[in-house]
Amino acid sequence: MTDTAFSFELLATCGQARAGRMHTPHGSVDTPAFMTVGTYGAVRGMPPEALRATGASIILANSMHLYLRPGLEVVDLHGGLHAMMGWDGPILTDSGGFQLMSLSTLLCVDEDGVDLRAPADGSRHRLTPAQVMETQRRLGVDIAMVLDHCPAADASDSFKRDAMERSTRWARICLDQPRGPGQAVFGIVQGGVDLDLRRQHLAAIAELEPDGLALGGLAVGEGPEEMDRVVSQTAPQMPSRKPRYLMGVGFPRDIVASVRGGMDLFDCVIPTRHARNGQLFTAKGRINIANARFRTDSSPPDPGCDCTTCQRFSRAYLRHLYSTKEILYSTLATTHNLRFYQRLMRDLREAILGADTSRLEELAERFSA
Amino acid sequence: MTDTAFSFELLATCGQARAGRMHTPHGSVDTPAFMTVGTYGAVRGMPPEALRATGASIILANSMHLYLRPGLEVVDLHGGLHAMMGWDGPILTDSGGFQLMSLSTLLCVDEDGVDLRAPADGSRHRLTPAQVMETQRRLGVDIAMVLDHCPAADASDSFKRDAMERSTRWARICLDQPRGPGQAVFGIVQGGVDLDLRRQHLAAIAELEPDGLALGGLAVGEGPEEMDRVVSQTAPQMPSRKPRYLMGVGFPRDIVASVRGGMDLFDCVIPTRHARNGQLFTAKGRINIANARFRTDSSPPDPGCDCTTCQRFSRAYLRHLYSTKEILYSTLATTHNLRFYQRLMRDLREAILGADTSRLEELAERFSA
Repeated sequence: MTDTAFSFELLATCGQARAGRMHTPHGSVDTPAFMTVGTYGAVRGMPPEALRATGASIILANSMHLYLRPGLEVVDLHGGLHAMMGWDGPILTDSGGFQLMSLSTLLCVDEDGVDLRAPADGSRHRLTPAQVMETQRRLGVDIAMVLDHCPAADASDSFKRDAMERSTRWARICLDQPRGPGQAVFGIVQGGVDLDLRRQHLAAIAELEPDGLALGGLAVGEGPEEMDRVVSQTAPQMPSRKPRYLMGVGFPRDIVASVRGGMDLFDCVIPTRHARNGQLFTAKGRINIANARFRTDSSPPDPGCDCTTCQRFSRAYLRHLYSTKEILYSTLATTHNLRFYQRLMRDLREAILGADTSRLEELAERFSA
Repeated sequence: MTDTAFSFELLATCGQARAGRMHTPHGSVDTPAFMTVGTYGAVRGMPPEALRATGASIILANSMHLYLRPGLEVVDLHGGLHAMMGWDGPILTDSGGFQLMSLSTLLCVDEDGVDLRAPADGSRHRLTPAQVMETQRRLGVDIAMVLDHCPAADASDSFKRDAMERSTRWARICLDQPRGPGQAVFGIVQGGVDLDLRRQHLAAIAELEPDGLALGGLAVGEGPEEMDRVVSQTAPQMPSRKPRYLMGVGFPRDIVASVRGGMDLFDCVIPTRHARNGQLFTAKGRINIANARFRTDSSPPDPGCDCTTCQRFSRAYLRHLYSTKEILYSTLATTHNLRFYQRLMRDLREAILGADTSRLEELAERFSA
């Protein structure tokens, strides 16, 4: 680690799409970039060197989950999350805001913070904006996210407005807290699929001068057309000299559409979770490796792929490992899906750097299904 | 692969203990050697390169299981088991004889073979000595095992004698079958803990001139003292110029005792299965990584170990991964336990090559618990 402060260079645009480079204390990240998810400080089935070999340059962990397990005193013993998990590249942590929605039966939100019962053991915890930032500082991550209150898509208008205003107040507190050396803090814009609310909240958050801005509360069931609409209308209003992060997104089609809409950073469990469930991404669409037709298919999972799985193993072998519940299957399948995502990001970036509009359209077409 | 025929060099002895080198079509194996178990053509959680990095030079798969899943026509498509699983080193396959005991409710043994119901789908299959050898030839493995009939430890004397005589007849058939290029076939000696039966069966099998001899039917509940007695009394009667394989053994203490008794080859699921269950081997004995005292233990799993897990990760991190059911835990723990076994084999070999009796005694002492 160096003490390089966080910065972002915008290198090229192509329509609304952008290519850039983020600099962090643990290295640089070419954007648009997909951040591989390692919620608990580990990517499922992937040792750090295997992860690096997929082309991953930055990973995402969850500070709330790590706060609960293994606990900050354990991370402290290792000198931070990077050393504990053996990953020397950039790390972004989510703050737990999304869990305020997904775990809403286990918590109670008030004006100053959240009372939470831990899903694993029922223990009680108090999260506040200041404490969430302290957690991320102690984890030593390169990019911390403010604590926000992400309302469910079906919440009432007044609940949503309250959550949005609370998120702004919390963001101000978060951005005033001490930081680790070179650590960036990103703000989170809520507002659901209401373009006016999005515009208002974006203005409120941007005014707080975070190092980057994220769109939260999308890909929560609103459907791809609604998401595309919000992204393509909101992104152009976001500060052009700061990275723009679309949280929790998504399928390849979502990523292509949102890159074209002007977003730079993405994270999602889809490539890793789908891999474990037998779903492999290929140039010709997704395949379910459990399908009987792959039993005698000795071709690679995705014939055009350069990943270490496709270079060495067949669909028939992967299907065999999946059928016999060999855990090696998860590692090999995850390796492929993650590489597929990284190749997609590389293709998008190259098209933008080359101002190749037709290539961007071609990628959108390919993943339109 | 080359067409090197199988051979064995005996390089040194120290008491009854032996050091040697086996040559196979896929490379050589220094003995004494531990063969890592990959029953279905995969070592749990270990890509081939990670397995190689533990020091493994030879692995063991199970021809009966592979015959059932994925089936020989699938392996054929890949040109053999080595290519299918991406392992270019030697492979030994067990024939299914042990499963005649462990799956005894699913099969019916007659004089000419076995009727079997597949555990996975209930499909019916007929195994004969000739067909088992055909299977192993098609798998393309370096060392094939004859089909034997391994009786349960609590079977009657007459059942055991029948099984022994059947095993001899089957071994003769197996050794008369066509083989792959350079492929070795090992005979299996049964006889339980009865030294007279062992002597008789050894004489009968040795007369058939197999390329190596195995002791089967041990480590099935007879206890370590009985096993040590049978090994140390039987090994000296085995041909000195052929490798001696103790099937399905075992804990480090069993391996040290059996190397001192004169055996060369071992295989066992203990290092891999124990790893997945939280049991890590260390220089100071086994530890259960789930234990609360490891929660804040930032030392490596085994401070003296040179494996890629101990070089990079702490007990606290492994415990965290185990607690959160991360599958990466299995890969990291298995890597360590397998390296532990390979280091033990290296220590034993070096002691024998150096005629270092006191070092052998020291190893026996260390693992006596």
